[in-house]
Amino acid sequence: MIKVVFLGFGNVNSHLFQVFQKSPTIEIVQVYNRSKKESLSEIAPVPFTDDLKEIKEADIYIIGISDDAIEEFSDLLPFRDRLVVHTSGGVEMNKISGKNRRGVFYPLQTFSKQREPDFQKIPICLEADNEEDLLVLKNLAKEISESIFEINSEKRAKIHVAAVFVNNFVNFLYHIGSDLLKEDNLPFELLIPLIQETAEKIEDLSPEDAQTGPARRNDQKTIQKHLLSLKNENYKEVYTLMTDLIYQQHRKKS
Amino acid sequence: MIKVVFLGFGNVNSHLFQVFQKSPTIEIVQVYNRSKKESLSEIAPVPFTDDLKEIKEADIYIIGISDDAIEEFSDLLPFRDRLVVHTSGGVEMNKISGKNRRGVFYPLQTFSKQREPDFQKIPICLEADNEEDLLVLKNLAKEISESIFEINSEKRAKIHVAAVFVNNFVNFLYHIGSDLLKEDNLPFELLIPLIQETAEKIEDLSPEDAQTGPARRNDQKTIQKHLLSLKNENYKEVYTLMTDLIYQQHRKKS
Repeated sequence: MIKVVFLGFGNVNSHLFQVFQKSPTIEIVQVYNRSKKESLSEIAPVPFTDDLKEIKEADIYIIGISDDAIEEFSDLLPFRDRLVVHTSGGVEMNKISGKNRRGVFYPLQTFSKQREPDFQKIPICLEADNEEDLLVLKNLAKEISESIFEINSEKRAKIHVAAVFVNNFVNFLYHIGSDLLKEDNLPFELLIPLIQETAEKIEDLSPEDAQTGPARRNDQKTIQKHLLSLKNENYKEVYTLMTDLIYQQHRKKS
Repeated sequence: MIKVVFLGFGNVNSHLFQVFQKSPTIEIVQVYNRSKKESLSEIAPVPFTDDLKEIKEADIYIIGISDDAIEEFSDLLPFRDRLVVHTSGGVEMNKISGKNRRGVFYPLQTFSKQREPDFQKIPICLEADNEEDLLVLKNLAKEISESIFEINSEKRAKIHVAAVFVNNFVNFLYHIGSDLLKEDNLPFELLIPLIQETAEKIEDLSPEDAQTGPARRNDQKTIQKHLLSLKNENYKEVYTLMTDLIYQQHRKKS
């Protein structure tokens, strides 16, 4: 059995909790949180504490709190030489206090309360101070995912920036699309099949090959028509910048 | 039987061809194209012509050529008072020559040779000069899709701009993500589950509610770290603009 204690019970840890519970080789020994979460008692009878001094023995301690708080929190832990990991894309492993053995267990996905993700496909990015601990993390990751990567803090930081582009910024483009349709009382549902096909396409085609549209063709007539129709100056700015960059990128190639 | 003639055999028409063929109530009478396409003889034994004068009788003529060419081409058709439609998001219905009855049959999707789309879910945006022709188009659309909308040229132009944001520009953000990972020899596959979940999430959550990330939280520490790590000035510009707009939008709300 791999014994796990959750330190904090935010979005990522509560999803890990749910998937770990399904594995016969993972034992969730305890959940620590500053305050008792109602959601916790609903989902399973696991020992809970809000007292750092009462944290139990385990093979792996998983910190799941806000990025900024990781360093200070890890310093407060009242034990030494145990394997303590965080789950963050944007925080270096060494932010965890050196009094314990350190690691990272970063599932590269966007989690929301409303949705249960399919962990099998989620890339788990692992890092550890030493080979032995890395193996422990690998064994844990294998229980929930088929997609396991060893990634150091520097590369993980790069992945985290890339994730902001393909998740946060992409979602904001969905928002712009929704907003444009709203002006004409058109339902956002119109765009959903297009959005989903755009995302699925890149399994077969590289984003470079999948690129289409007026910017790629340098179809100035359509581009000018679109710019005229955009009333929101911010959206105009996004349109102009993206169009320029797509055009530049594909001109270079041809 | 609904009798259809394809005028031109580009991306959209060739996908329509394939899905129409499966319907027992649609008869593809003929395909016209300037030159014989090899792909055509491979897929089915349908009469072909490259001579406008030999175009046969049908209930609906579907023009599937580049946007710019629709007006002139429709003028060259050697018949009158028949129902002629185009499949374009960005072209007004009235660009079709008035000597025929006019309409639009616009499947709101991105088509690529490599992928067979599920037409059932694709919104078909219809427009026609009169109610009777609209009904003919509705009957045709019903054969392939469950999602049918009557949309005039003005609203369709708006949808077309929105589609550029959620398809072309989103795909370019995928390209940036891929490019950032390439700098560190990381595989693009790492980002695919995140990309797909981002696109699927909006079935349950509005893009506004689905928005997460450093920009939404106004997490300046992470934002500055990301900007420092971006070497490409263009990508920096995209990062700054999108971050500002996400922050503005969510500050307004709170």
